[in-house]
Amino acid sequence: MLDWIDSYEAREWQTTTEGTVRYALIGLGWWTIDVALPAIESSDLGEVTTFVSSSTAKAERLAEENDVAHGISYEEFHDGVKRDAYDAVYVGTPNAYHLEYVETAAELGKAVLCEKPMEATVERAERMVETCEDAGVPLMIAYRMHTDPAIQRAKELIEAGFLGEPVSVHGHNSQPLLEMIPDHDQWRLDPDLSGYGTSVMDLGIYSINTARYLLDRDPLAVHSEMSSHHEAFGDVPDERSSALLVLEDDVKMVTTASQRAYEDTELKLTGTEGQIAFQPAFHGNVTLRLSRNDLQVTVDHETFDAEREMQEEFDYFADRVLTGGDIHADGRHGLTDMRIIRAIHEAAERGDIVEL
Amino acid sequence: MLDWIDSYEAREWQTTTEGTVRYALIGLGWWTIDVALPAIESSDLGEVTTFVSSSTAKAERLAEENDVAHGISYEEFHDGVKRDAYDAVYVGTPNAYHLEYVETAAELGKAVLCEKPMEATVERAERMVETCEDAGVPLMIAYRMHTDPAIQRAKELIEAGFLGEPVSVHGHNSQPLLEMIPDHDQWRLDPDLSGYGTSVMDLGIYSINTARYLLDRDPLAVHSEMSSHHEAFGDVPDERSSALLVLEDDVKMVTTASQRAYEDTELKLTGTEGQIAFQPAFHGNVTLRLSRNDLQVTVDHETFDAEREMQEEFDYFADRVLTGGDIHADGRHGLTDMRIIRAIHEAAERGDIVEL
Repeated sequence: MLDWIDSYEAREWQTTTEGTVRYALIGLGWWTIDVALPAIESSDLGEVTTFVSSSTAKAERLAEENDVAHGISYEEFHDGVKRDAYDAVYVGTPNAYHLEYVETAAELGKAVLCEKPMEATVERAERMVETCEDAGVPLMIAYRMHTDPAIQRAKELIEAGFLGEPVSVHGHNSQPLLEMIPDHDQWRLDPDLSGYGTSVMDLGIYSINTARYLLDRDPLAVHSEMSSHHEAFGDVPDERSSALLVLEDDVKMVTTASQRAYEDTELKLTGTEGQIAFQPAFHGNVTLRLSRNDLQVTVDHETFDAEREMQEEFDYFADRVLTGGDIHADGRHGLTDMRIIRAIHEAAERGDIVEL
Repeated sequence: MLDWIDSYEAREWQTTTEGTVRYALIGLGWWTIDVALPAIESSDLGEVTTFVSSSTAKAERLAEENDVAHGISYEEFHDGVKRDAYDAVYVGTPNAYHLEYVETAAELGKAVLCEKPMEATVERAERMVETCEDAGVPLMIAYRMHTDPAIQRAKELIEAGFLGEPVSVHGHNSQPLLEMIPDHDQWRLDPDLSGYGTSVMDLGIYSINTARYLLDRDPLAVHSEMSSHHEAFGDVPDERSSALLVLEDDVKMVTTASQRAYEDTELKLTGTEGQIAFQPAFHGNVTLRLSRNDLQVTVDHETFDAEREMQEEFDYFADRVLTGGDIHADGRHGLTDMRIIRAIHEAAERGDIVEL
């Protein structure tokens, strides 16, 4: 137990401590500036050299404010301006813009770390995967839960038999989006920019992807019910979403997500012999609760916030880019999520069960 | 807050402290002997005078061991033996036997407290309701969560607007039945005795009924997936069960239950403005977690175990029988659960959504 505690943050995935990946950050919203940028600055293997935004003036201003060498416009990025200043791009724009930046990055031979969900539609996500595969550039989808220590340790325990046979999974992810960003016209509520909808694309994806990763099992069938009520959600179908997924080996997963609800995250995996719960689960400070036999062990990790999660993720990505190693959450892994999310929307729209 | 804590166990429902209801207990399994009997003995308004079991010898032996006046056989019960010794019956037999004892009790003019689920099928539950209505005897279904203080206080808070608009509900109830009762031929695994199946009938009903009670909203549509794997579950379809229910006002409820999984219970209701979670939720010692604004209040109530829950339930029942007051969890309330459970089984069998 002493060893387990002292190596809770161990990076079993790490293969190098040498080298630096220089990043261009594309899409300078609050997440990129307030979380991704400091995460890279704190990381061992990364450095931000270039900001890319809607205008040169905005990019240069933000670059100066944040002590970043270059600021260029989206157009300049597409023209290859400052191409020698960075080795990789981090794409943090609205979903429907991911593809165009990845296409340019691939042309320029740059490695790509693209936020999730990887694009607005399955078709555009497929084009992204093909583009990167054809160009031979590394593509990683930014599932930061994969390198969170709570998820890493839980995955090791599950692989060692902690749960017995997995039986069921509960996932929940809700937040009051309109209180966080009081703008009825924000991109997450515009299907042209967000894709199939808002709650599943932006929140439900955490439960589904983390369960897939932990259990190494994908959904085979999807039931879904969703609805919108508030006027700000008039263009998206899923102010409230819920789904029932049958994973491989008949594991039953139920999940809810809402962009207009009290903030809460939970992921709970129950097996024949034990249970693993994350509560909160997804946005940093993950609490891991392990139950087996008559014991319940609770691990709080309150220093490991969302920025530390991002630091872990950037170091993982850099490790793989620097060594040419296989990337786990690659484009094809992300594409499976896109197909699951499309199936969830189709199931709700058609009022039917959708097979995957 | 002082008042709230000091009146946490307050019985808002209580209308009398005078009188005694004398019970015949029918079906002398471990729950009846180890939980129901001491609950009535500790209660203010109840007393056990009669045991009813498969043979006179067994009933008399158990009556003597437990200091109960009379022991009679099922046959003697049907013949009205000792009918003047009790005012009410508590039916704790396997599900498929409930109706025959309720029919006799109704003929004898006795009040009925019947365990949940109320019978093996909807049709038999309907007959039970009609029988008691025709005979004019009180019928209560034994949903002991309704009078648990955690549920009572939560219901008051919900009615006062704690959650805002209710958005989603998660319910989970699992236990390792074969470790608790190591018998592959037990009645809960025999559909002739249990009814539609085992996990939804015996465990899932807690999540569904408690959510209905707390939110005062019933399901309108049901999705379901269930499967059996272990040989002991060969005759029932739902070793593992999962359901997605749309409640009135578009509240999305997801629920899982399994008779062959690590023991855990949880019920969590999320609204636009707050969240109420019970963890554990169902078998005594309920922990109530209230979240609203930036506060999280956790109420542990570890002295209030399953026997105390039963004591509360028996006193509620006795209060209503003694005063002739309306009974809340009446036969029609239980019948709605039976229809929901049948719909969950039909949805899984047909691979379709079932409307209610």
